[in-house]
This record gives sequence, C-alpha cells and structure tokens, in this order.
Amino acid sequence: MKKINILIYTEDVLKDAALRGNELTPKAYPNGLHAGIAGAFDSEKYNVRAAGIDNIRETITPEILADTDVLFWWGHCHHHEVPDDIAELVVREVNKGMGFVALHSAHIAKPFLRLIGTSGSLSWRLNDSEIVWTAAPYHPIAAGIPTHFKLPNEEIYSEPFDIPAPEDTVFIGWFSQGMVFRSGVTYRRGYGKVFYFQPGHEEYPIYYDETIRQILSNAAGWAAPQARRDNLNCPNVEPVV
Amino acid sequence: MKKINILIYTEDVLKDAALRGNELTPKAYPNGLHAGIAGAFDSEKYNVRAAGIDNIRETITPEILADTDVLFWWGHCHHHEVPDDIAELVVREVNKGMGFVALHSAHIAKPFLRLIGTSGSLSWRLNDSEIVWTAAPYHPIAAGIPTHFKLPNEEIYSEPFDIPAPEDTVFIGWFSQGMVFRSGVTYRRGYGKVFYFQPGHEEYPIYYDETIRQILSNAAGWAAPQARRDNLNCPNVEPVV
Amino acid sequence: MKKINILIYTEDVLKDAALRGNELTPKAYPNGLHAGIAGAFDSEKYNVRAAGIDNIRETITPEILADTDVLFWWGHCHHHEVPDDIAELVVREVNKGMGFVALHSAHIAKPFLRLIGTSGSLSWRLNDSEIVWTAAPYHPIAAGIPTHFKLPNEEIYSEPFDIPAPEDTVFIGWFSQGMVFRSGVTYRRGYGKVFYFQPGHEEYPIYYDETIRQILSNAAGWAAPQARRDNLNCPNVEPVV
Amino acid sequence: MKKINILIYTEDVLKDAALRGNELTPKAYPNGLHAGIAGAFDSEKYNVRAAGIDNIRETITPEILADTDVLFWWGHCHHHEVPDDIAELVVREVNKGMGFVALHSAHIAKPFLRLIGTSGSLSWRLNDSEIVWTAAPYHPIAAGIPTHFKLPNEEIYSEPFDIPAPEDTVFIGWFSQGMVFRSGVTYRRGYGKVFYFQPGHEEYPIYYDETIRQILSNAAGWAAPQARRDNLNCPNVEPVV
Repeated sequence: MKKINILIYTEDVLKDAALRGNELTPKAYPNGLHAGIAGAFDSEKYNVRAAGIDNIRETITPEILADTDVLFWWGHCHHHEVPDDIAELVVREVNKGMGFVALHSAHIAKPFLRLIGTSGSLSWRLNDSEIVWTAAPYHPIAAGIPTHFKLPNEEIYSEPFDIPAPEDTVFIGWFSQGMVFRSGVTYRRGYGKVFYFQPGHEEYPIYYDETIRQILSNAAGWAAPQARRDNLNCPNVEPVV
Repeated sequence: MKKINILIYTEDVLKDAALRGNELTPKAYPNGLHAGIAGAFDSEKYNVRAAGIDNIRETITPEILADTDVLFWWGHCHHHEVPDDIAELVVREVNKGMGFVALHSAHIAKPFLRLIGTSGSLSWRLNDSEIVWTAAPYHPIAAGIPTHFKLPNEEIYSEPFDIPAPEDTVFIGWFSQGMVFRSGVTYRRGYGKVFYFQPGHEEYPIYYDETIRQILSNAAGWAAPQARRDNLNCPNVEPVV
Repeated sequence: MKKINILIYTEDVLKDAALRGNELTPKAYPNGLHAGIAGAFDSEKYNVRAAGIDNIRETITPEILADTDVLFWWGHCHHHEVPDDIAELVVREVNKGMGFVALHSAHIAKPFLRLIGTSGSLSWRLNDSEIVWTAAPYHPIAAGIPTHFKLPNEEIYSEPFDIPAPEDTVFIGWFSQGMVFRSGVTYRRGYGKVFYFQPGHEEYPIYYDETIRQILSNAAGWAAPQARRDNLNCPNVEPVV
Repeated sequence: MKKINILIYTEDVLKDAALRGNELTPKAYPNGLHAGIAGAFDSEKYNVRAAGIDNIRETITPEILADTDVLFWWGHCHHHEVPDDIAELVVREVNKGMGFVALHSAHIAKPFLRLIGTSGSLSWRLNDSEIVWTAAPYHPIAAGIPTHFKLPNEEIYSEPFDIPAPEDTVFIGWFSQGMVFRSGVTYRRGYGKVFYFQPGHEEYPIYYDETIRQILSNAAGWAAPQARRDNLNCPNVEPVV
C-alpha cells in the first residue's frame, strides 16, 4: 500500500516563546510544534515532511506540493509573512486534489481564507478546559473517536465563527466559561478536501493527546486524494452533436 | 400589508401534566402551551390559529394548510397518534411553499422526520441552564438577537443530533453539565422553508421569554412563502427545439 | 477483502409489458430488469440478491436489510403498492448506514421521497437521445467515467426537479429536444449515503451500457457503509462536568 | 422605501473590440457594456454607479463599497489587471454584507475566485444558441421567470464547472451543440450573498433581453443586505458563566 505524503507547515513557536519570555510553550513542545504534530502519523503509513515560515520558499514549492497528499497548516503570529503567491499556490494545488487541514489559529491563515471565502472571524479568550463533542459520528474523521472527550487546557474559541455552511460539522467544542464553537468542519474545493480543526493552542501539549492524534491521522486518510488533475485551465470543448 | 397566517399545533400539556401529577407545567403554562407560543405573534402582523392532537382531523385539513403561511409544531408524548396521512399532507404543503417550524421535542415529530429524512435522534437529560449562541448573526431569524442569551431552566439536548447538514446553523446551545447542541437549523424542502428550534420544554415558561418570542416571530417572517405552487405532479414537457 | 452485499429491488417489467402489449421492454430486458442491473456487479467483489414488489414482504425484511450494504431501487408503476412500513424500514436502515441508490423513476419511490423530503416532481416526455455530463469528476462515483457519454435512447426527464440542494451534483443530462436534468445527485442521511441516478427507462437496454454499469459499480463502492450503528433511539446522557 | 445602491464593474469592451477589429460588440453594445447592464435597473428603485478597469482605483474604494448594496462584476480580458488589494477589499466587503453578482466570464475574476475558493474552470466554445432552464423556481432570483427561455446567440460554457456545491442551483443552461452548464448558482459568504450568472458574452446583446434584465433586477433585490457589520476582527469574549 502506497504511503500517504504529509507536509506539515508550522511556525517556530519556541523562538517566538523565547522572545516573549513564554514558559508554557517550551514545556508543551520541547522539540517544537512540528515534532508534536508529526507524532500523529505512523511511519508505516505516512511520509512526513516539514515546512516553515522561515524557509517557506524552499519548503513549499510547486514540486513539493505536487508530491504532497495532505498539507497540515499551523500558523499564528506570522500569517501576514506568508507570501501571497504561496497562498495562491496552495489553493490551486488543493483545487487539483491535495488535501488541506487548517489547525487552530489557521482559521485566518491566508490559504484557508482563500479556500473558504469568508473572514474566519471568531471570538477568543485565554485558557479554559474544553469538551469536544462528535457531532458527525458517521464521518471518517470521527472513526474510533468517542462521543465526547476532554482537553484540560485550551484557548477559548467561540461562535459566531464566520465560515460558509460546512459540508459536515464533525466536532463542536464546549468551554467551561460558557462558549461553544464548531471545532471541526469540512469543505470540498475542486478535487481537494479541506478540514478545519480547532484544538492546538501552542501553550498546551494538545498534539500529544492520543484522541487528537487519532483525529489528525483520520483526517489525513480522509483528505488524501483519490484522484488528481493536472491543470485548472479552461479548455475548449468540441461539438458533441 | 397582508397579515401572515400562523397555525400552531400543540399537545394538551396541561391534561398530560394532570395525569402525571406534574406541577411545573401548569405553573409555566397556566393557559396551556398554545397561549404561550401564540403570544410571540403581534396581532397587527399575524393571524394565529390553533391545531391540536385531540381534534387534529378538524384543525389540520387541506383547506386550512392551503391558507397557512407558517405551521409551528410542538409535540412530545403523542407523536405516534398523528395520523400518517396528516404527516404526509403537511410535508406536501411544505413542498408547495408553507413554512414549517419544529419546536423542541418535535425533533422526532412525524412531519419533521419526513422532511429531513434522518432519525432526529439526540441525547437528552432533565433540567439544566442553557446558553444559546447565535452562530449565524447574518440570518433573518437572528435579526435583533444578541450574540448569546441565557435560559435559566431547560431540558438538555445534546449532540450527536442526527440531522442532514443544515443550510444554516443559526443557534448552538451550551449546557452547564457539559453538552452542546445545534439548537436552531434551517432547511429548504421544495418551495417551503423549515426551521428547527430546540428551546421549549413544557415545564419552564420558555415561550414567555422575550428573546425566544423574537426568534419565533423572526422565523415566521422568514418562513412565510414568497411564492407557492398549486401541485406537485410530474407534468409532461413539450419539445423546445 | 469482504464482499459488498447488494440488494436490488425491481418491479416485474416483463409482466407489465405483456399486459400492455409493449414490445420494447422484453427486447431490452429479455431476462427481466434484475438481470440487467445485476450484471453491473462483479461477483468477485459483490454478493447480489433480488427483491421485488410481488414478494416484498419476504425480500425486504429487517434481517435482510441489516445484512445489506447497498440497496438499489427501481420502481415505476407500483410505487403505491410498497407498504408504508417497508418504506419506513428502508429509511431507518439508511439512517443506520445502509447505502441507497434510487434508479430512474424511483425519483418518486416512497423510500426515496422520505429520505429527501421533497416531492421529487420533474417534467418528462417519451424517448429522446441523452448526453450525460460529468459535473463532479472528483467524485468516487465518477471514477473512470468520461467527461460526457451518450445514450441513444432514453426517456426525457427535465428540470425543474424538486429535490433538496444536493451534496454533490455528479451528472447533468442533456436531451436533444432541449431539456436538461440533474441526472446524478448525492445526499447523506444519518450514517447512510444516498444516490439518485436518472438513466434507466425500461424500454431501452440502458443497464447493459458499460459506462452505466461502471457508474452503478462505483456507486455501490461509494455507498457501502464504513460504519454502522445499532439503533436510532434517543439515549440519556450523563453529566460530563 | 430606500433605494438599492448598485455598482457595476465592467471592462471597456468597445475599446477592446476596436483593437481586435471585432464588429459584433459595438453592434451589440453601441454605448458600452455598462449601459446595457444598467438598463436592467429601474431608477425608481435603484441608484446605479459605474466602475471600470481603467479607473479602478477611483471607482472601487472602501468608501464606495461601504455605500454599495450590490456589486455586479463583468470582466474578461483584464482579470489580471485587477490589483490584488482591490480583490481583497471586495471579498471583505462581501463578508460584511455587500451582495456580489459575477457575470459571465467573471467565473475567473479575482474577487469571485477568492469568494468561492475553487478554480472556476469550465469548458467553452464560440457562439451557439442557449436554452436557460429554471431549476429553482422557488428562488427569489427566479421570481417571474418562465420555466425556460431562449437566447439565440451566446458563447458556450460547459461542465465540468469547478465550483463548490452551490447553496441553490437556480438556472441550468442547454446548448444546441450538446453541452450543459450550471448557469446560475448562489453562495453565502459571511453576511454577503453571491450569485454567479452565465449569460452575457459581449458580442451579443444579452443584457438587453427582458428576461435577463428581470433576473439581474431580482438578483439585486435578493443580494441587497438586510444586515451589515462593521468589522471582521476577532474580538475577545468575556466569560458568560
């Protein structure tokens, strides 16, 4: 069975944490965010590569994307540093079939906004506990996931969340301070599948949680393309009758 | 401006409460549920009529439905007493253009199930407080409704809620015991608009809440048909070329 | 690899043709409609069983449906003879996970109407040639299907087609007399996937066409459930916090 | 009653036709495309302003968009000259509530692509006759429009059309050379409504057709915002419990 090629885009959260004197992030991700997310993918089934804001021109190229089945995107403080042409490149590769998973604060990442066409606006607040509910137990992304599970620490994301009506609302989050959020939503854009997944604030080791890892792995399996097309040009059509 | 014709179907919750010795319901709705719901509709803008399970053959007829803009449906203990032919009649009138608003435990009312095509299954639990969030502030049903509002007492309804992907998810509910629920969802079925709205357990005076009443009134305005068709038969079509 | 269990419901079109003196149908389907449809399914991958209106109580039972992955439904003159309880049984099994494929005039079959919640109304006319276009080349049902293909003889089905907005519009049909029709549309209802496919008028050997057979086989693979649930009851939920 | 503010963006098709020696366009639109489109809007109900590629920095500004209810966009040869920041400005104003109607070859206009998130790819061919079918007679955009109407000359646009699943498929086009196309589709993006409408090749006087003009007028009434929001920032949220 052919392995699924995963590309994980992250920011260097350890560098940013050091600049701000934040002590939680290095405790949560001592080896950086990439390592935490990459751990979700069994090396028997997945090839994992890394991309980042600091070397984005080398790590996100047309050739690499053409060889990527699913691109995971975690961005937060550096959204505006992503070059417009790379955001466009990602969108068109999704249209050709590449899967795209936007993680946490990627709700306003450039390629995600261009895929959904809305502002991605939401309300937020620091640290709370979250209960994630599986609203779509029939969905492949929810395979093996319990009806609900808890995250002891997570940033609050709250409705209203400015997104188009999802194809499926897979997860909905509950926060103890009274908020709710559509935590997992899916879209199709051309040949490509898109999944947004809310958990993943960098100050807590969310991506080491086994249920979260199962969801990421499921999402990769679901979003990996069954078919891919070469180009997006508008061809001429011959008369049929 | 032509008035909107509202028909409100309810069960006789006072009779059922008396049979069970329930004291909360008569306190919440001393004049019955119909009176509580009907109070949402300004008589300058709406004509309101009543239908009920005890006289359903007289109160839900083809003639009455043809003259109804929006049918509100509140049922709980007597779903199975609704004759199949009346459920069918309601569905076909919705297809012709009549609006339909399913309230609270009408998530498994016969006409609602036939309109959505799923089981309407959900999880539930008695009495909690609820916070209702407006997930679709752009929607006409949410006009004038705050970002969130509280209901001090409501029955818990919880995900997973077995419904088709909604056209719009207008409201999402939060319960203090840890549950979430898509509390307001919309569909189109033929010429008719459909809205499901979760608040409305009969032991608490939910329908006397001013925000709830505004939502019911908004829903009536939204679901009232702009166009209606006469029949649903499959006509013959003449050659066009 | 586990075989996919197919159940094909058909009417006895040879008997009906004989009653009316129709000579086209026995020429198109000398062994009956079931044989024509069943030929689409490679016996290495599929187990195929037959159901029919004349023995519907024996061929569509809770036990058989629980053991069916995908139910194909071809009905025309006998829609009203299908017992309501069997239509209901089919709908609830779809909600549990069984796939359902409605063929041709099943656009107004009882179980299909209860799944979609609209009237299924369309316009029609006898015999024309059709060109079927693949509008969703990314969809598993369209795998290996060309951008367009021709059917030399088919009944005309024309818009407006009274259906809910489809999850995907996989095929759109063109008729030489000037009509268009959404010929292949998909829905999800609970755990189950639903596909409506227009070609299949009984007077022409549509189901012997290799492209049509590929579509039926693709549809079976797509609609076969990955997960199935046991019941549709509304369970109680325990406090989470 | 407050008038609806329409802004119509067009290219200077007369200038482009002169450069190429095209004689059809000046015959179809002797006063330019703007005049043809603007004629659809009754001055009692609409204020109409013009925007264009040659003076886009003066005619599409934040202030003008904030005062626009519905922006109609006709572009063809000059898509790439539209500055990225203006495409972004349009998208965010749609998210705030402004309606957006993409006409004909605007299927690949920058703001439209950013709203839908797909490539907008389609197949095409010069000059044919088209029959436009009303697939969603219930929709406000179809009010008063017949079940089908003919355009004696139009460019062929053909499926597959790379768009997300529409909220409503209002029109489907038939071409005599054998093609079909989803000619009218709707989306919601934030507070704003989006409509794509295929007819409008500049060599034929499509926008002088009375049925086409009724559709444009209907679309303006449908897409004009009922509510508008000020900003798209992610606000902080206070604890609710």
